[in-house]
Amino acid sequence: MSQALSGNTFGTLFRFTSWGESHGPAIGCVVDGTPPLIPLSEADIQPWLDKRKPGQSRFTTPRRESDAVKILSGVFEGKTTGTPISLLIENEDARGKDYDALKEAFRPGHADYTYWKKYGIRDHRGGGRASARETAVRVAAGAVARKILGPSVVIRGALIQIGPHKIDRARWDWNAVEDNPFWCPDRQAAQQWEGFLDDVRKRGSSAGAAIEVVASGVPAGLGEPIYDKLDSDLARAMMSINAVKSVEIGAGTAAAALSGEENADEMRMRDGQVEFLSNHAGGILGGISTGQDVVVRFAVKPTSSILTPRRSVDALGHDIDIATKGRHDPCVGIRAVPVGEAMMAIVLADHLLRQRAYRGEGA
Amino acid sequence: MSQALSGNTFGTLFRFTSWGESHGPAIGCVVDGTPPLIPLSEADIQPWLDKRKPGQSRFTTPRRESDAVKILSGVFEGKTTGTPISLLIENEDARGKDYDALKEAFRPGHADYTYWKKYGIRDHRGGGRASARETAVRVAAGAVARKILGPSVVIRGALIQIGPHKIDRARWDWNAVEDNPFWCPDRQAAQQWEGFLDDVRKRGSSAGAAIEVVASGVPAGLGEPIYDKLDSDLARAMMSINAVKSVEIGAGTAAAALSGEENADEMRMRDGQVEFLSNHAGGILGGISTGQDVVVRFAVKPTSSILTPRRSVDALGHDIDIATKGRHDPCVGIRAVPVGEAMMAIVLADHLLRQRAYRGEGA
Amino acid sequence: MSQALSGNTFGTLFRFTSWGESHGPAIGCVVDGTPPLIPLSEADIQPWLDKRKPGQSRFTTPRRESDAVKILSGVFEGKTTGTPISLLIENEDARGKDYDALKEAFRPGHADYTYWKKYGIRDHRGGGRASARETAVRVAAGAVARKILGPSVVIRGALIQIGPHKIDRARWDWNAVEDNPFWCPDRQAAQQWEGFLDDVRKRGSSAGAAIEVVASGVPAGLGEPIYDKLDSDLARAMMSINAVKSVEIGAGTAAAALSGEENADEMRMRDGQVEFLSNHAGGILGGISTGQDVVVRFAVKPTSSILTPRRSVDALGHDIDIATKGRHDPCVGIRAVPVGEAMMAIVLADHLLRQRAYRGEGA
Amino acid sequence: MSQALSGNTFGTLFRFTSWGESHGPAIGCVVDGTPPLIPLSEADIQPWLDKRKPGQSRFTTPRRESDAVKILSGVFEGKTTGTPISLLIENEDARGKDYDALKEAFRPGHADYTYWKKYGIRDHRGGGRASARETAVRVAAGAVARKILGPSVVIRGALIQIGPHKIDRARWDWNAVEDNPFWCPDRQAAQQWEGFLDDVRKRGSSAGAAIEVVASGVPAGLGEPIYDKLDSDLARAMMSINAVKSVEIGAGTAAAALSGEENADEMRMRDGQVEFLSNHAGGILGGISTGQDVVVRFAVKPTSSILTPRRSVDALGHDIDIATKGRHDPCVGIRAVPVGEAMMAIVLADHLLRQRAYRGEGA
Repeated sequence: MSQALSGNTFGTLFRFTSWGESHGPAIGCVVDGTPPLIPLSEADIQPWLDKRKPGQSRFTTPRRESDAVKILSGVFEGKTTGTPISLLIENEDARGKDYDALKEAFRPGHADYTYWKKYGIRDHRGGGRASARETAVRVAAGAVARKILGPSVVIRGALIQIGPHKIDRARWDWNAVEDNPFWCPDRQAAQQWEGFLDDVRKRGSSAGAAIEVVASGVPAGLGEPIYDKLDSDLARAMMSINAVKSVEIGAGTAAAALSGEENADEMRMRDGQVEFLSNHAGGILGGISTGQDVVVRFAVKPTSSILTPRRSVDALGHDIDIATKGRHDPCVGIRAVPVGEAMMAIVLADHLLRQRAYRGEGA
Repeated sequence: MSQALSGNTFGTLFRFTSWGESHGPAIGCVVDGTPPLIPLSEADIQPWLDKRKPGQSRFTTPRRESDAVKILSGVFEGKTTGTPISLLIENEDARGKDYDALKEAFRPGHADYTYWKKYGIRDHRGGGRASARETAVRVAAGAVARKILGPSVVIRGALIQIGPHKIDRARWDWNAVEDNPFWCPDRQAAQQWEGFLDDVRKRGSSAGAAIEVVASGVPAGLGEPIYDKLDSDLARAMMSINAVKSVEIGAGTAAAALSGEENADEMRMRDGQVEFLSNHAGGILGGISTGQDVVVRFAVKPTSSILTPRRSVDALGHDIDIATKGRHDPCVGIRAVPVGEAMMAIVLADHLLRQRAYRGEGA
Repeated sequence: MSQALSGNTFGTLFRFTSWGESHGPAIGCVVDGTPPLIPLSEADIQPWLDKRKPGQSRFTTPRRESDAVKILSGVFEGKTTGTPISLLIENEDARGKDYDALKEAFRPGHADYTYWKKYGIRDHRGGGRASARETAVRVAAGAVARKILGPSVVIRGALIQIGPHKIDRARWDWNAVEDNPFWCPDRQAAQQWEGFLDDVRKRGSSAGAAIEVVASGVPAGLGEPIYDKLDSDLARAMMSINAVKSVEIGAGTAAAALSGEENADEMRMRDGQVEFLSNHAGGILGGISTGQDVVVRFAVKPTSSILTPRRSVDALGHDIDIATKGRHDPCVGIRAVPVGEAMMAIVLADHLLRQRAYRGEGA
Repeated sequence: MSQALSGNTFGTLFRFTSWGESHGPAIGCVVDGTPPLIPLSEADIQPWLDKRKPGQSRFTTPRRESDAVKILSGVFEGKTTGTPISLLIENEDARGKDYDALKEAFRPGHADYTYWKKYGIRDHRGGGRASARETAVRVAAGAVARKILGPSVVIRGALIQIGPHKIDRARWDWNAVEDNPFWCPDRQAAQQWEGFLDDVRKRGSSAGAAIEVVASGVPAGLGEPIYDKLDSDLARAMMSINAVKSVEIGAGTAAAALSGEENADEMRMRDGQVEFLSNHAGGILGGISTGQDVVVRFAVKPTSSILTPRRSVDALGHDIDIATKGRHDPCVGIRAVPVGEAMMAIVLADHLLRQRAYRGEGA
């Protein structure tokens, strides 16, 4: 992944540059590196944005945004032209006044303090550039990436833990994911979570979460050793999502406790194709895709905005006690599911083009 | 982090480009972006290489390499000139013949299969480019990065788990780290690990491990939102190390189970300075350093090279059974400790220069 | 200069990513890497756009565009925040229908044929992405770059040749530049050019031109050897402007005919400062600024859109004869003057930040 | 072209990172991004280095270097593996003592003063990093680039002017180029140049020169608008060569004087192929190759090292008079011919891979 030095660009051959603050007039991105002649319209992008959009259940922020995306360039007569695709989403429900009290206060666990230390100035309204609102443009760019990957690559995400409550992987059902407000693949867990998260929400508290994203149909050979390994780029991609504190590939942290015998994913030929007998590797060996499912997990910390007052300081050097009012997600991890899917698509599309550069069309 | 598209460059303002295979004549790297006038000699680099070097205990590969580094450019009369620093390490104990049997076989859990799928050719001797030998150049580049950071930034790594055996964090003692062959900060655990790993080694098996790297004295303000967050770049850096399967920042995966109240690192003024009362964030908020310790953990899978035969296939499409002979580390995680430290130094040095570009010397 | 691989990003630490076609709804760019706390508003950018804007005299295209720039992000309460600045300019006078006849025809000297060969698709309306309209965003980005450079760096451009008619350098007067429709520093030449260009325009022909851009007050030390020399980056910057066919630094092509004695810019101390006695180098030695005026010249070919029919082919493989109707500049070089100034500002701002990264504030 | 921020990397998908000073132990580069399975050995690289090598006639510096290149990585059993290719050339005839007198003196027209201003330190021996010796690694990298391009792309360079003496283009004969010490395509001019340059050499003076590099067989469609145009990248590539002061594409500076009618390269179908009837464009329209010959010219200033004393200053702020002793080329432009060819090959190989990424194998 090559990127702008000030950090607002992601990707190399397929890349996007994002801009916009939570409470400015709009947010958007420029998607560059899309091959020409791919059919593309706003209708290809909007469903993914709708999936991430706030206000869809009582478990996400009540901020109301239609998140309607506009394509401003790069598409001609329904097809990509190979030139940059400018995507724009207007901010509609930006109540700046809610935040006046926070102007000089640093909320614990927020980026308030660090932006102040870094820049000496910050747009304090709704987190400004550090707001989770920024993730909308990732989802929009991810929709374009999916078009490059084509239908043979299927990317799906799921919430596998809320607070201390994990799913039972034996009950994993991808069909369940769309049927509950959590993108939870375990119907039974989803029901339990409702009670838990209602309680969290009513107390004005918040909960962490864990997400798993799986990409099927990824061709073997994607990923560039040594420093642009497919897993390195996925780690960077997921860790760059707001509030993410860990990234795991395949067996992940559990790999530390395995023996070499347990960890080895054995192989056999089957109908002339290589078949792996297990997938501790998460579909990546030596930084390069094996052709198995690519499996990534990440943990999201609880939203820092809570009603219980916390000790903090302000920009003037005063001790203060602070409780966040405004509108917030009790579990920001829920809306991270489509964002994680988008980042997976973006990383894969980039590496698909990179491999094609070196090995040609068949890659 | 911007990087070469074929993935052999790491970093943006401070960057290195690495080259070399396990069994070629030498390995090395070009370190670019070092500010001028920094005192530098081979004596500044060699101790860190010695720390990573194989054959220092019965718990690492018996391959014998002096790993003597040569500076070929970029230093004049004992000081950096601002021009690229070429570092070269000769391969001495490269017994290519050990590997002839592996020429067309794919070892489970190795990069053999994926390099074959990616490139259609591979240097099979000792893992070729995918060998852990490559990490020597990271350590060399990391030594230069430490010189840029200066003595106020202290970077230390430790092994905190081998196989299923974790340290007791209550017994953490940085002084213990140098006193055992594991870089273990818990003397009691270190003793237990000897027996465990001797057993693993004798059985020709291997064990996973977990490493923690801590950087103290990092100034607040480092990290570039949105996609080049300090934690995103650390995640990529650590995940790019051979065999790493997860990366965690601060509370890491455990953050998923925390409540917002628990997770918030409260702040108070103390002697005119901001003081944090806890560090779940691992020293990073919104992708930017807070001034607290930067804390990164990563899990390393067990070495794939084991004596027990495993089912596999070869390049000709045959089913085979394969056991690795050659010389190998029973726990590759041990030698990952200095590598993790080096990657921390490299990421921090890069972001220090980046912040300086935008904010000037005081940054 | 690092840039997006698909070529729509320019710059490294200070960079912009542009998007938009001649006849789409808008054009724009994302300016990334602007240090925080710089006062910036649309009023800082608009005057430079007005200078480039078409329809200001009978010597430029009659297309009417107000070219009003909007800042969509990155500025808070009148100051830059260090986050990306999104700039948008709406297209107002986009008469797509003028171009229907050109849908499958390739105009000689245009990018029609090469876009077709490259992408297999093109937005043929008004040149699409290849239109000189794209240069408006360069001028907008350049205005931000000027704010980074501050008032001590003065960048001025002038037209020094139209068709075969050159200025007399002995009559060079910067004050004359604003007084004629050509940005010509030689009042006498400007008068002669009116007659010449009126004739060209009436015949439906077009004329080439040469532009000189001079930056004064550039500190010594900017430019990164070996491949990012200040002159290399200026050469790339200017050559990337539509229709430019050559770039010269200082003595330029005339340097080939000089002897070493003539070419050497001698130095003397004067009031404790180094003073150069001539400036054949154009302010750059070894790729690094000397502190003298940085002097760049570039030649612009005549507009390809002419009334006289030319032999060509179309996308179906037919021989055709083609004459361009639509609205066009008889000498596109005139409007290249503010574009060249902008590119100079962008390159210098980028290198200023780069030098600051390595050498600190004083740089 | 993306590059390292400190400027020692050139290229994006095909790129090289160079290192080394004139009087250090060696120079070299790491070539990254070469597709796998390309036959490559030192014998493919050495002939191009021999062409550039000093001491081959009385018209180049008498410094004696065998310039023997070693491949240290990236090639296995005679083929590229897709991993980085490390190339190393030892410095043999590095007489550092010749330069002691220059330690604190700034030679007019050299990079001495600017390196000092930039870095506050410099390796003064033989120009250090700014030495023309650096161009050897460009030639080595260019040899690898030629292997990527394959035999259908033919790149040839020629010297077309020495001092004020130009060739007669009507006498252009590519076969003549190898028959004289100047790479001159005009046998008659070559003879006249001998006398001219002997005189220059005997007087301890120096002469400028102009070089033309032509690439035939370049497929249409290479080049990435807007800022990575093929001509922009060529301009940067050539301007980055030591002592180059101008770059022209096709008609170049002469384009300013042309009318639109003269400049338009008309097209006709011929045997089912598009045929251009002229090539003022130099094979590039809108930044993209047309399929015609790509034609680049550049002017080289006279070597700054001359025997006649010139006025200058030193690092201590004294006025001095300085004459260069040491060993130098009377016309550094001669050895710039193979360097220009190499840079052409590098730029074309990079863009070939880029186009392949977006359009697949057929590109």
